[in-house]
Order: sequence, then structure tokens, then C-alpha cells
Amino acid sequence: MTSQDRSLRERAARVIPGGMYGHQSVGALPAGYPQFFSRAEGAYLWDADGNRLLDFMCAYGPQLFGYGNARVDRAYVGQLAKGDAMTGPSGLMVDLAEAMTAMISHADWAMFCKNGTDANTMALMAARAQTGRNSVVRARGAYHGAAQWSNPRKKGITPADQADQHLCEYNDVASLEAAVSAAGDDLAAIFAAPFRHDVFIDQTAPTQAYAHRARALADEKGALLVVDDVRAGFRIARDCSWSTVGVQPDLSCWGKCIANGHPISALLGSDSARRGAESIFTTGSYWFAAAAMAASLVTLELIRSTDYLEHIEALGVRLRSGLGEASHMHGFGFRQSGPPQMPLFLFDDDKDLKLGNAWSVQMVSRGVYVHPWHNMFLSAAMTEQDVDFAIDAADASFRALKAG
Amino acid sequence: MTSQDRSLRERAARVIPGGMYGHQSVGALPAGYPQFFSRAEGAYLWDADGNRLLDFMCAYGPQLFGYGNARVDRAYVGQLAKGDAMTGPSGLMVDLAEAMTAMISHADWAMFCKNGTDANTMALMAARAQTGRNSVVRARGAYHGAAQWSNPRKKGITPADQADQHLCEYNDVASLEAAVSAAGDDLAAIFAAPFRHDVFIDQTAPTQAYAHRARALADEKGALLVVDDVRAGFRIARDCSWSTVGVQPDLSCWGKCIANGHPISALLGSDSARRGAESIFTTGSYWFAAAAMAASLVTLELIRSTDYLEHIEALGVRLRSGLGEASHMHGFGFRQSGPPQMPLFLFDDDKDLKLGNAWSVQMVSRGVYVHPWHNMFLSAAMTEQDVDFAIDAADASFRALKAG
Repeated sequence: MTSQDRSLRERAARVIPGGMYGHQSVGALPAGYPQFFSRAEGAYLWDADGNRLLDFMCAYGPQLFGYGNARVDRAYVGQLAKGDAMTGPSGLMVDLAEAMTAMISHADWAMFCKNGTDANTMALMAARAQTGRNSVVRARGAYHGAAQWSNPRKKGITPADQADQHLCEYNDVASLEAAVSAAGDDLAAIFAAPFRHDVFIDQTAPTQAYAHRARALADEKGALLVVDDVRAGFRIARDCSWSTVGVQPDLSCWGKCIANGHPISALLGSDSARRGAESIFTTGSYWFAAAAMAASLVTLELIRSTDYLEHIEALGVRLRSGLGEASHMHGFGFRQSGPPQMPLFLFDDDKDLKLGNAWSVQMVSRGVYVHPWHNMFLSAAMTEQDVDFAIDAADASFRALKAG
Repeated sequence: MTSQDRSLRERAARVIPGGMYGHQSVGALPAGYPQFFSRAEGAYLWDADGNRLLDFMCAYGPQLFGYGNARVDRAYVGQLAKGDAMTGPSGLMVDLAEAMTAMISHADWAMFCKNGTDANTMALMAARAQTGRNSVVRARGAYHGAAQWSNPRKKGITPADQADQHLCEYNDVASLEAAVSAAGDDLAAIFAAPFRHDVFIDQTAPTQAYAHRARALADEKGALLVVDDVRAGFRIARDCSWSTVGVQPDLSCWGKCIANGHPISALLGSDSARRGAESIFTTGSYWFAAAAMAASLVTLELIRSTDYLEHIEALGVRLRSGLGEASHMHGFGFRQSGPPQMPLFLFDDDKDLKLGNAWSVQMVSRGVYVHPWHNMFLSAAMTEQDVDFAIDAADASFRALKAG
């Protein structure tokens, strides 16, 4: 038996540090996960060895309307033939800024970039420029990108890189107040994830008290509130995710699925942050490229005009119910947290992830790509039949886990 | 007369901070420069009002083989149909890492990202992780991206963001030695542009003394040498640009033209930096996407197999000669600096850029997009006829300048 994946890993180990890096490295996943993929279509991926997988990671978010969505990709390819990265932007950049500000309640303006990290760093810089202050409050364990200021690891990061930061606990109002208090007169921004979607732990919705207190504290202190919607944007609402708890930020960060996988991210802002945003210098080689903007315009139109959101919510509820029954029947304490359309699965009494890893590998071997400790994503390309296929695979995986 | 550009600017002013941002904003250019473009093909751009422009900016570098290069774009579109941003990379990522390390003498490994800024920041983080030190030496005025540590402006940047940096003057060995000395035992990296391509001043080639001293000082101090080839890469050599002065870095940063405008950048490294690179956390939503890698593989093949480099050098020499004659004939002190294929034009006794701005606007009005204070780029899609068209436009522009 040859394994294309093994062969690619051996070659990669020579020419890519550690064989792979970043969030798509399977180095921290158990054996049995493929590292390389050869094809994607709709809700499905094919690994380098040709195994088909129903993909509950959706490229870690970007895929919202199905891999290779014909309308979106046609817009990309059509614009590519006219002009993509040019010496200046095309008019599509204005169209896209208008489309996003029309859809997102708090937004008066938009800036486009390439990485979710770019959008978060621009939010921080704009808030600092707007307020003339340096300090930022954010929740411990929340991911706001891989920049030096937000990097979740210590290697290559200096103490100065993460100066002027005060950490709180998500949904803990007292700790939020303490962090804001610690910033004194220097508070530039409070960052918030739309819900708690840290790795390795149950996901939790924002409490009304926490979200409203964050808004009130920002207002009291003359600081800006930033919602980082890169991961969850447009899977919770057709507006900024905190609109569901009645809170509007000054700045929101977007990326991943706003062009159904084509490379673009965005910082949206209110007029309360416009002066700061105008004054900073931020740019990138391909930030003004037109093809991804054409793709984003079609994606936004699909978001506005289809029932994709209700569809992925309903599929998420169906999946949650089916997995709940199957796990119960086989006697496993199986916790499903987060919005149904962005689920995370953890087993009770499984600190070392032994059960979670083993079950996830069983799922992969049965053609369903789930993640043992990162939240997942449903896509509008999925059907009830797909979800039932996943539930059947789960039933068999629980059975195998019990037997083994 | 309707002006699409004016109309787009009015709309943009409402929904984009300052109307536009970053290196593609024409806010700092004189009136007469279009902000928006509708089409690009080969060596030419069309602005939003349909005016055709021979483009000496090449999208600020990315366009090397012509806008819409058929072979490169076919590779992009073909891969898009198979899979682009997926839950993991495709095998093309390994192919591309092998192709780049085979072409670039010092490189043993490659990491891919989206912005030139990403590559520079990863170089800094990898060097810090490799050495366990924090300090960096770089030349005053050199652009290494728009991250917080490298940002050329102060708005939104804190003192801590730019801590642990020691500045020297490019090509000034004594100042390089002084900056290295100031870093003491804490030197992680020396950054170098491949030549001095700062805005607003004449470009200068690196001296042998400067380049070799940088290498020797890095070795003496146990630090790493980084060449930032984002802007100049593959327009100076088919290898890292400092190979032309006989110096190999530990790390080199690439972007812009490595996929002829498709969004990808890269950090290349020697084994001397592999451990550091392996240990850092760096990632982005679209960094593993396959279509830009397919486009890059074709671009690299064109770089290896065609005489594009000799062609753009010869065209640059022809342009330099023609512009020299024309400016002399009209009695202007007109300085052309930098490699002929990456020229910068400045007028003598023109501190406020009044002459340069006026001449550049004349050129744009005659269908030739030149920049009054940023280095330019030639592309392999240009012909002798195109260059002669530019020389004729220059002759008329010098004449108009003298008359006006």
C-alpha cells in the first residue's frame, strides 16, 4: 500500500519547518488524520489518498456555501480576466464597502485586508490612534490572531510585544471591571470574541451582563469596543454577532467566510473610530485585488437572499440531537457546546483527550472529518442526508470506542 | 463630462476611511492620478474612465509576466476548480517549497503566507526564537512592512511596539557596527533591503563592504541575517538578490511577483534558522490555499526557463538611455537611480517635488503611469515599442514642463 499522505509528509519534513505549521498542521492531532487534500466539492473533501470526507471544519470556517460554489467562483474567475491585483483598486472595492456597511448595523466604513490577524491588528491600531491611548483589555485564552501582540504562544515573542494588555475572564463581569480598572486612564479598546470559542473547553454564549457591561465600560472610559467576528461572522447572524445580544461595537473584524474561501478579510468601523482609522498606515501587496472582492459581493448577496443561516442552524440542531441520542445509547458523557452550527464536542472525564481523540479518528475513518478540540463549522452545502450520514458514523464510532 | 473616478472617490469617501488607505491610495500624489482601475492586460491598465496606461508600477511589483498572464492564470483557475482553501493544504504546498528551495541558494525550507509583512514578521519571530534574543538592527527609512514593529508611521503605534530595535544608515558600515554594538549580547537579527529602495531618495546598490560586514557581524554575534526581497525579489536575480554581491542570508522574505499577482508570500530559511521557525506560531485563514500555489509554480517555471530577467534589464537600459537623452535635450537635471528594471526618477533642485509631480502628471495624461517618488517596476510583458512609447511621452512631457 502506498500512502500519498505519508509520502507528502516525508517530503514536507525536509522543506517545511516541522513538516507543517499553523492551524492546519495536524501535528497536534492523533494519527489517522490526513495532512494533505487533493480535492474539495460542496460539503466534501478528498484527502491525498482519495478518501472522501464530509468536512465539519469547512477550511476552519471559510467555506460557507460549499467548496467550489459555482456562483461565487464564477464571479472570481470573471473578475480575474478583467483585472485582479492592479496598481490601484477597482470600483468593486467601493461596492463591497457599501455592501458590508449596509449589512452590518454598527458599520459606517470598511477597510479590506487579507488575514483575520490583519483585521484585528488594524482594529487595535485604529483604537489606539483614535483614543491616543495604548492599553487593551481582552479575555484570557481568546484567539485574536497570530500577530506578535495577540500570539497565543511565547516562542519568538518578546515581553514588549504584549505590553499594555490587561486580561480578564470571558463572561466574568467582575474580572472585566478589574482589567478595565487596571488600564486606568490608558484604555484604548476592549476586545471581545462574539462567544467563547477557545480551544479545548466547552463553548459558551456571551451573557447579556458581560456584553452590555463591556459596551458601558468602553463608553465610560472613552475607549472603543471591538468584536472579533473573524471566526463566527455570518454563522450567528446576518449582522455583527453581538447584535444577537443587543450590543453594537465600534469596530468589528471579519474574514474567513466573507468571500466563501477567497482571500479577503475586513475591518468594519463606526464613525466613532473613523478618525483613528484614517490616521494609521496599514497596507498589503494584494489587499486591493479585485477578484476576491467580486467573490465577496456574491457571497454577501447569498447571505442576504438565501435561508443559509436557518438551514445550517436546523442542520446543527439535527446533528446535535442525533449525536446526543447515539452517545447516550452507548453510555458516553458527550458534551456538545456552542451554537449548533458551530459545535464543539468533548467527552466527560477526558482531560487527556484520549476518548475524544479515539472517537474522532473513528469518525475520520468512516468518512466524517470532525475535530477533537477545536470548534467546527457547518456549511449551507450540507444536507439532512449528510447530517444523517454523520450521525450513523457517530453511532458506529461510539460502538467501536466501547468495544475497543 | 462625467468622471467615473470622481464619482467612485465621492462614494469611497463615505465608506472607506480617508477615501482610500495604504500604498495604493493616491492621496499623496498630485491631482491627475486616477484612483480606480477597470481593467488590466499585459503591460497596460485602464482607469475607471477607460484611459489606457502603460503601467510602470506593475501593481507595485506583483505583475512580472504581464497582467492576466494566460499560463499563470490558467493554473490558478484550474486549481480553483479542484480545491483552493481547504481544511488542509494540498500537495502543491510541498511542490512549491521544493521549487523555491531549489532556486534560492541559501534556502533549505519555506513557509508560505499572504502579505510581505507576514514574511518579515515571521523572519523576526523565527530569528528571536532561534537565538533566544530580542534585538534587531535595521536601516533607517527602509520599509519592511506595515506591522506594528515595522510601521513607518507613528499613529496607532506604541513605544513598546518598536522596542529592541537599533537603526543604522544603509551602506554605512560604521553605523551598522555601532547599531550592532548597541544591541550588545541581545542581537537576534540584522535586516537588510537588497538595495536601498526607500521612497523620496535616489536608490543605491548595496556596497560589497556593507553586505559582507552585515554577514560577518551576524556570524560574530550568533545572530541571523535577513534579506527582505519582497519588493525586489526575482527582478534582480533568479536567486536571492544579495547573491549578486556574494552574500547569503539565513532568512529571506518574498512576495509580490512570486505568483505574478496572485496572493502569496513566503519566508525562506536556511537550516541555521530551522529550529526557530519550527517553534513559532504563525498562521492565516488562507495561507494554505492551493490555487495561488499552483500559480506560483508556473511563475517560478517562467522565471527559470525564460529570459524575462535579461529582457526587463535590456528594456530598463533602453528606457534609461531614452529618458536621459530627452531630459538632457530639454535641459533638465533628471536623475535615474536603481537597477534599470526598477527605476526611480527625481529632478535636481526639486525638494518639494514640484517638477517631479508636474512631469509625472504629464506622463499620466499621455498614457504612461510613472510614480514621482516611489521606485517603479518593469515587466516582461513590455516591449521595445512600449518603452519607445514611454520615451516619446517623456519627451513631450519635458517639453510641456519647460513651456509651462
